Amino acid sequence: MATQLQRNGPGGTKSHQLFLLLKDAITSGRMAPGTKLSGELKLAEEHRVSRVTVRRALEALMEEGLIMRKPGVGTLVCERPVGATVMTASVSNLLPNIVKMGESSRVRLLEFGYGYPQDGVRERLRLEEGERTQLSVRVRLAEDKPFSYLTTHVPERIALSYNEEDLGSTPLYSLLERSGVRLDHAAQTISATLATKDVAEALDVAVGSPLISLTRVVYDVDGRGVEHLHALYRPDRYRIEIDLCRAGDADDRYWQPLAPESQ
Amino acid sequence: MATQLQRNGPGGTKSHQLFLLLKDAITSGRMAPGTKLSGELKLAEEHRVSRVTVRRALEALMEEGLIMRKPGVGTLVCERPVGATVMTASVSNLLPNIVKMGESSRVRLLEFGYGYPQDGVRERLRLEEGERTQLSVRVRLAEDKPFSYLTTHVPERIALSYNEEDLGSTPLYSLLERSGVRLDHAAQTISATLATKDVAEALDVAVGSPLISLTRVVYDVDGRGVEHLHALYRPDRYRIEIDLCRAGDADDRYWQPLAPESQ
Repeated sequence: MATQLQRNGPGGTKSHQLFLLLKDAITSGRMAPGTKLSGELKLAEEHRVSRVTVRRALEALMEEGLIMRKPGVGTLVCERPVGATVMTASVSNLLPNIVKMGESSRVRLLEFGYGYPQDGVRERLRLEEGERTQLSVRVRLAEDKPFSYLTTHVPERIALSYNEEDLGSTPLYSLLERSGVRLDHAAQTISATLATKDVAEALDVAVGSPLISLTRVVYDVDGRGVEHLHALYRPDRYRIEIDLCRAGDADDRYWQPLAPESQ
Repeated sequence: MATQLQRNGPGGTKSHQLFLLLKDAITSGRMAPGTKLSGELKLAEEHRVSRVTVRRALEALMEEGLIMRKPGVGTLVCERPVGATVMTASVSNLLPNIVKMGESSRVRLLEFGYGYPQDGVRERLRLEEGERTQLSVRVRLAEDKPFSYLTTHVPERIALSYNEEDLGSTPLYSLLERSGVRLDHAAQTISATLATKDVAEALDVAVGSPLISLTRVVYDVDGRGVEHLHALYRPDRYRIEIDLCRAGDADDRYWQPLAPESQ
């Protein structure tokens, strides 16, 4: 397990960093299956580290089944392990997809309760002074493998209209609309971040691994926030896809996101 | 400079990793300006490192102007440095925005030439066996600060219809359409990755920093690839925004990306 490497592994953190860089290159596809790695000496020169450091990083990659030694050939990137599903979300139907995912994936609830959110969340949800939110922290798994770490805030006045059992059986947006909330629009920001200790443990990655970060705020017709989501995704198990088509006439051409298919 | 820390800094890479994690928390806004940091001892316990390691990480953060010591108060997150512009791209008009950016930002060309692309690029561009591409590697700067690292492949037969001077004065898509290419659609994937040595130097970040990764392939009406772009963005200087609105009727509600405004 990657998270053990840091705590019990023999390597110092230089080899850990090299391990992370090479792992990222492999899981992102930049180093395709079958690619031959440079020799230890060349890797050491390229990354300005010692051969011992390189060897430790390679051992860790081998333990994770990402590379293999082939006698007489060298060290090769392994084929993608069977069952390593990558969940995808298209922007045209980002949220409906998440609903579908909800049906095929499992959720582990790490935290649940009511309290006062930090300033950033309060401002973006446009809460009044002293308003509380329902906070939940969940990890989502597909085929028993964690791929997302979700921190959700819903204003208390809205969250009280449903219970945990409802949440288990019905998508949040349907629950909200049934209880009279008139959803209007959502603002999303996508970025990248590093796995901190807690998140790394929950997602079964090494501390310092790259994660896709998505923040979403959903508003009702009066412009009041009804949900604030902060989601972290493992890039080897999740990706966001955006398809565009070229539109307009000869004088004024532009790119337009593809409309969602009939659902 | 962050990139110097690794080479000349006094800290081992444990303090470098802690520095990266704290820097990421500050630049992403999770630790807002004015936030008080935990004491050295508490930070050491939280991250299971020594106090010396914590002190080195804090010194590096101080050198970068991210935190400050306030006598009698403690260590605080600084206000966002003046002029730290964050470029944003909305998905509804992701490409036009990049064109506008092109007008207000500067480009540094790191590499330019013709050759045989790697398999992944060749397959996605649907090139024929033995077809060459024009390769360019560019760094884009806003206010003289680098924010993106762009690797572009264009099939040679298309690239020969314009020269470098044209590229400096006219957006690529306009050039392509003028020379008869009928652009049709584009597929984009967003992910997260770590800065490798070369990219880290070009973007002036530390090795192992998180980056937003975007891959775009643009196709013509016959389904042939005309551009393959791999873009890496500094998350503290760039973010992708996606706005959606709730559409459909009571029986069938869904989220729809906002249409681009008239351009």
